[in-house]
Amino acid sequence: MEKPSIPKGTRDFGPQVMARRLYLISVIRNVFEKYGFQPLETPAMENLTTLLGKYGEEGDQLLFRILNNGDYLKTVPDEALTSRDLKKVSALIAEKGLRYDLTVPFARYVVMHRNEIPLPFRRYQIQPVWRADRPQKGRYREFYQCDADVVGTDSLLCETEIVLMIDEVFSRLGIDDYVIKINHRDLLNSIAGLAGAAGRETDLFVALDKLDKIGKNGVLDELQQRGFSDFTGQKLFEIIDASHHTNGLARLREIIPDCRGLNELSKVFEMLAQAGNNALHVYFDASLARGLSYYTGCIFEVKINNVAVGSVCGGGRYDNLTQAFGSKEKLSGVGISFGIDRIYDALHELDLFPPKAQAGVQVLVCHVDDATFQEGLRIVQCLRNAKIAAELYPDGSKLKKQLDYANKKQIPMAVVLGPEEMKRGLLVCKNMQTGEQEAITLQQLLEKLKS
Amino acid sequence: MEKPSIPKGTRDFGPQVMARRLYLISVIRNVFEKYGFQPLETPAMENLTTLLGKYGEEGDQLLFRILNNGDYLKTVPDEALTSRDLKKVSALIAEKGLRYDLTVPFARYVVMHRNEIPLPFRRYQIQPVWRADRPQKGRYREFYQCDADVVGTDSLLCETEIVLMIDEVFSRLGIDDYVIKINHRDLLNSIAGLAGAAGRETDLFVALDKLDKIGKNGVLDELQQRGFSDFTGQKLFEIIDASHHTNGLARLREIIPDCRGLNELSKVFEMLAQAGNNALHVYFDASLARGLSYYTGCIFEVKINNVAVGSVCGGGRYDNLTQAFGSKEKLSGVGISFGIDRIYDALHELDLFPPKAQAGVQVLVCHVDDATFQEGLRIVQCLRNAKIAAELYPDGSKLKKQLDYANKKQIPMAVVLGPEEMKRGLLVCKNMQTGEQEAITLQQLLEKLKS
Repeated sequence: MEKPSIPKGTRDFGPQVMARRLYLISVIRNVFEKYGFQPLETPAMENLTTLLGKYGEEGDQLLFRILNNGDYLKTVPDEALTSRDLKKVSALIAEKGLRYDLTVPFARYVVMHRNEIPLPFRRYQIQPVWRADRPQKGRYREFYQCDADVVGTDSLLCETEIVLMIDEVFSRLGIDDYVIKINHRDLLNSIAGLAGAAGRETDLFVALDKLDKIGKNGVLDELQQRGFSDFTGQKLFEIIDASHHTNGLARLREIIPDCRGLNELSKVFEMLAQAGNNALHVYFDASLARGLSYYTGCIFEVKINNVAVGSVCGGGRYDNLTQAFGSKEKLSGVGISFGIDRIYDALHELDLFPPKAQAGVQVLVCHVDDATFQEGLRIVQCLRNAKIAAELYPDGSKLKKQLDYANKKQIPMAVVLGPEEMKRGLLVCKNMQTGEQEAITLQQLLEKLKS
Repeated sequence: MEKPSIPKGTRDFGPQVMARRLYLISVIRNVFEKYGFQPLETPAMENLTTLLGKYGEEGDQLLFRILNNGDYLKTVPDEALTSRDLKKVSALIAEKGLRYDLTVPFARYVVMHRNEIPLPFRRYQIQPVWRADRPQKGRYREFYQCDADVVGTDSLLCETEIVLMIDEVFSRLGIDDYVIKINHRDLLNSIAGLAGAAGRETDLFVALDKLDKIGKNGVLDELQQRGFSDFTGQKLFEIIDASHHTNGLARLREIIPDCRGLNELSKVFEMLAQAGNNALHVYFDASLARGLSYYTGCIFEVKINNVAVGSVCGGGRYDNLTQAFGSKEKLSGVGISFGIDRIYDALHELDLFPPKAQAGVQVLVCHVDDATFQEGLRIVQCLRNAKIAAELYPDGSKLKKQLDYANKKQIPMAVVLGPEEMKRGLLVCKNMQTGEQEAITLQQLLEKLKS
């Protein structure tokens, strides 16, 4: 029989990785909840009518479709089968698909539960999504998204709180060298106008978005290839370069007066100051251009310096969450998405996972005969009652094998019960890292472990 | 446009339900970890070669299959399409399926990672599974399973610890009226032998398993219909009735001497006593017959009394986890599965969810003008810095609307900032349940909330 495997682009998360992922997720969850965000979970499967058309044609191609149950070929006309009309056949044999992101299910949820939801509605959602992308390093077909959104208010307090939450998550994770880039969709539009590229914003900013990769001259070349005038390139970088200066925001307000985008960005910086945040990590960058077809207000992107993992958070304000579902009510919102996989990689690279993020048993109780096994059973329960994760080695194996097990499972302490020590009411505690051992009472052990 | 919906048999979990589910899961996770179980997560999608044939023909029918991406019809012969040969077509157009349970992915994981895993291996796994069952009350097409298993040891310590874990989970949840039924597959075989039904065990115990529903006479009728002799029925109930007495285990050991099953059950009770557990909730029941085709040793089932939710946990010992994947090594294991949905329903019915399992904001900060909004921003951050989940109302709405929001979101306290109080350094704190209010300092508020 062939050795089993898992589908391309999917992963098992074993104990060590899981312990760290749970730690990371609990830090983020905790910050979300402190800021009033409430948890939501939606089904892995959505109706394809919900999913299709929401992610562009390319997105539709990347949906995992679920075959209808029962005799799914029954309703497919002969003609569609023999002509192998994929589109027609797919529509008839698959009604459901796996969710592609958490935003569309969130919008669908809001439309379905509009009357019960108190607005503004703050929800967070941490669940896997699936995309039939070509798997490659760092890109998976199943991966977690971790989103927090507020809908139903235009207040820039939400943008401010997104920055505050990012700062708090990174500070708790021990990451201190990172930058929260911030920009505004309206400013991008103004820039395009000033650069004589109104109506061609997407073209312009797709080129500009490569600035980090190909540099200023690369972008200028690309603009030329795309048929933009020299004036456009010059004007564009006059503004971008000004934004990259200290006090870039003030400089831009001189160049572009009365720009809603700049006013809103200034307001966010003001509110940060009022909230006691020194905006040390926030960096205004007029070249940031993400989610052009989606975001309508502030946009965010977070990068950790000196770690090659790309951007680890992204988000922004959108104008109309529920429009795609035919809702006439305009629900504006702001969202942020934490890239769990990349933050995990960064924490790993920076060696920032704390000891408590190790998979958890603190003590292995070892024994040498039936009587010490029985005493071990009593002791392991005493440890557990004191909230200490502990195991009693289950089999009557040689002590060496028991200690090997402790080592393999990275259990930091072994308690060895010998008949002699037992008589004297003592336990031999062995530090599995240093090899040091001492004979102490159970009470002393409990105190030692609690401190 | 039609109002969106979710697939039949799936659910959204909104904030209130999620807060409770997270509480329930964290209690169980915490107990698992204290007993040395380590977390595992496997992909939602598995190769169909992994899943097919593991759950019987009926199970195969209930698998959700995922359509291959790209031109999935390309490799299907004309003949299979025109004859609508479902089996052939399915095999060619779908290579992957959604996991049906957590046991098969666990076995697959153990086989794939056999060399890295320290034995005995204790893992827990809390993830959704999918079954194309006909949806009905309490039966869903997507639901969570919550399993803990130990493999690689025959020690009855594992069975003992399963009882200890169940007791601890229920005690932490505040459930005190429940029963852990325990039986042994070997005893069932012995009973079948004594009742002259050797070789027809499945038939016999499928009938007996209905005892709770149809009573003794119903089971006797059914046995007759299935062609068993009167002797079988008599002998069967002689033993079952004896097992239901106080000290049933001792009585059965007199009736059936040298039964491995009875010896092992006695040993489990002994170990429970050694671990300081009075076995108050453990009930030996020779009529318990679950997972006949799978379990080979002790079997467990947990019911909560006076709540109509059915069995809430089940499990037992199996002989050979990895056999289905062609592994020659015999890996015995014991597992327990907590039925999250049913335990949730029971906690709800018994009104046992604690206040901390409510979706979490403690304070809403309200304001009446721009100056108090700015002061509010400072105050809400002070609360959050003191680890208190708090929100500042984001918009400049009337106070009534702000307080309505607090009510709808079940936020227990509103802090109202008025210009007069602000001058005097005071906040008006309003208890949203009683309507009482008092003017205190921020310091006093922090102390109040911490106590």
